[in-house]
Amino acid sequence: MKTNKLALTIIKIGGNIIDDPISLAKVLNDFSKIEGPKLLVHGGGKEASRIAEKLGLKPEMIDGRRITDNAMLDVVVMTYAGLLNKKITAQLIALQNLAIGLSGVDGNLILSKKKDNIVTDFGFVGDVISVNSDLLFKLIEQNMVPVFCAITHDGEGQLLNTNADTIASELAISLSKYYNVKLIYCFEKQGVLANTEDENSVILNINRSDYKDLLEKGAIHSGMIPKLDNCFYALSKGVQNIIIGHHSVITKQDSIYTTISL
Amino acid sequence: MKTNKLALTIIKIGGNIIDDPISLAKVLNDFSKIEGPKLLVHGGGKEASRIAEKLGLKPEMIDGRRITDNAMLDVVVMTYAGLLNKKITAQLIALQNLAIGLSGVDGNLILSKKKDNIVTDFGFVGDVISVNSDLLFKLIEQNMVPVFCAITHDGEGQLLNTNADTIASELAISLSKYYNVKLIYCFEKQGVLANTEDENSVILNINRSDYKDLLEKGAIHSGMIPKLDNCFYALSKGVQNIIIGHHSVITKQDSIYTTISL
Repeated sequence: MKTNKLALTIIKIGGNIIDDPISLAKVLNDFSKIEGPKLLVHGGGKEASRIAEKLGLKPEMIDGRRITDNAMLDVVVMTYAGLLNKKITAQLIALQNLAIGLSGVDGNLILSKKKDNIVTDFGFVGDVISVNSDLLFKLIEQNMVPVFCAITHDGEGQLLNTNADTIASELAISLSKYYNVKLIYCFEKQGVLANTEDENSVILNINRSDYKDLLEKGAIHSGMIPKLDNCFYALSKGVQNIIIGHHSVITKQDSIYTTISL
Repeated sequence: MKTNKLALTIIKIGGNIIDDPISLAKVLNDFSKIEGPKLLVHGGGKEASRIAEKLGLKPEMIDGRRITDNAMLDVVVMTYAGLLNKKITAQLIALQNLAIGLSGVDGNLILSKKKDNIVTDFGFVGDVISVNSDLLFKLIEQNMVPVFCAITHDGEGQLLNTNADTIASELAISLSKYYNVKLIYCFEKQGVLANTEDENSVILNINRSDYKDLLEKGAIHSGMIPKLDNCFYALSKGVQNIIIGHHSVITKQDSIYTTISL
């Protein structure tokens, strides 16, 4: 659906980009050149686990999600909202973007509730309830470039570790009230692969029916399933355009990537 | 000088308050009840040193300033801009203040330059150059309550550890363009003491001439000197009202404290 709304680009960068300073510098340089309203969401990479181990904690992941007890929450908040968020923000400002590093706590921008832990106790992990999109819109309208880490809060003083893909899709949904939102999930591969062993098997377009077929064939691996679920949910809630691809898609419009559609 | 400007209250809380969860909760509760535009600046307390030691680093202070090499800068950024800033912000939001946690990096709000290290090499420590007061004013006008940690940047991607008292006075100076600024430095004592051994020797008012006399008598101890220098500098640059006192001054208007005047 075409409307008269302004375009907004949301880029989510994953852990493998964060962990490689050369890739990160390249992505930030490319991101800084995107014209018009934009927003960056970053994951955490392996830094939090490295710091946790040095502090004598034992990082534990189940189904790609971090078990976050009180001590691990402190490490995650320090690493994501402190170290990574401020370094990325400083680099973007050096690239002449008026970046503002934010967590979901700041300005009550992303309210969550502690995940119901029926099967596994993930600890202080949040499910997003709402986005303060009016305030976020005002910041963006003042030419600021929000840079989000994946920390949220429950409104009662408790910080919560939250999935960065979900943060990106929830921000995209809430801002689609004001903008035609293009959401790009960047990672180390060129897109969703039909065969995870074959880097050249990028699927150029996936709609819901394709997704169902791929799931039945067992062609989609576990880490990609929640990402694609997020994508279809975001499209159903008004996000105009979603891409999954290598970070080179930010600048190279002719590169190969996966477009998700309903 | 009385003007028609709105009043703005800036509270700076020091390390001893940060280190004591009960004092901190009380201060934040009191702060949350201040009416009208306001802003909080927090120091770091001993948390950064504790984390640094756990990570195998050796914290080193000279004249109350932290020697900040690359590894220590990471710890300071994690602790101040991550852990402490987000915990304080989440607690203020739970108290119904629209708090937004900020460092000087965010929105390019506080630009610094690396301190000239003629005598001692302090490392990545910043001297404030400028405050983006127009942007800060817009945030405050949108009913946000900025919560600043003492991390700034040099505009070229380098983060810098910066003195929190100086951050508070520089913010006060820059915002005095828009507001009648009241700046309150809160710490564990009731005010500036004539005799550091006697808690009842609070000096109720110090002007420049008194300060000179006290310095000559050796009555002002080392940690208080840069704080008072900051105060006189801020007053000379347009800040209307400066108080040094115990955090109970935030609510108890009849308590004893030190007023600084020119």
